[in-house]
Amino acid sequence: MTNKTEVAPINAEAVASATAAIRPETHLITIVETFRVLAHPTRVRILYALLQQSLCVRDIAIVVGVSESAVSHQLRHLRDQRIVKTRREGNIIYYTLDDQHVAALLREADFHADHVQKGLPDHPYSLDHHAS
Amino acid sequence: MTNKTEVAPINAEAVASATAAIRPETHLITIVETFRVLAHPTRVRILYALLQQSLCVRDIAIVVGVSESAVSHQLRHLRDQRIVKTRREGNIIYYTLDDQHVAALLREADFHADHVQKGLPDHPYSLDHHAS
Repeated sequence: MTNKTEVAPINAEAVASATAAIRPETHLITIVETFRVLAHPTRVRILYALLQQSLCVRDIAIVVGVSESAVSHQLRHLRDQRIVKTRREGNIIYYTLDDQHVAALLREADFHADHVQKGLPDHPYSLDHHAS
Repeated sequence: MTNKTEVAPINAEAVASATAAIRPETHLITIVETFRVLAHPTRVRILYALLQQSLCVRDIAIVVGVSESAVSHQLRHLRDQRIVKTRREGNIIYYTLDDQHVAALLREADFHADHVQKGLPDHPYSLDHHAS
């Protein structure tokens, strides 16, 4: 199937394995959109405030130190991308992280930032054991 | 310490808990930068190709379907943000995910995208048990 203009892989086995693991296009778009909506200082502050408990807009505004209207604006973006969800209790709407994967994303980003800031190497039980 | 112009929290205990959990400013900046560098279609493709094994530039280019120079360009961004690291074997430089938290970030984003695309609710063992 290979024609002369194609470049030969250095490690054909690794290329086959990586190609098989590629996510479908629509899935990749959702992943990129998820990271895009997370890449914003106010939204990141809001999400870490929600990591341990639900909060209403007023309480988020107090914690994050911005206006309630700024919080509502960013929550709309986060809700559109299913990063947060809402729950009504009487007159008050509480915001929560949408699912546990969002919470895990925030924790892992926090751990990675630790690595970057402290210049830590990877943990000894590296994922690199698959490499030839 | 409260003056009359300040807004009273709805749930003072939750506000205190969320405020205590806020990450330092420099840490938040690194987290935002991490999400920003991940929010790019070609970079996301490269990173999922690296999830199972190390690959050299040529093999990444074959898997992702872009030129080697485009791959090198994006790898430079990823390396600047400590998302990938390199290892030399003879004449060949292999790229690997920088640490296990990066691998976990990619897996959790993948799981979250599943939730979004299939319209799944959160798992039954919700993190929301802290909410009042």
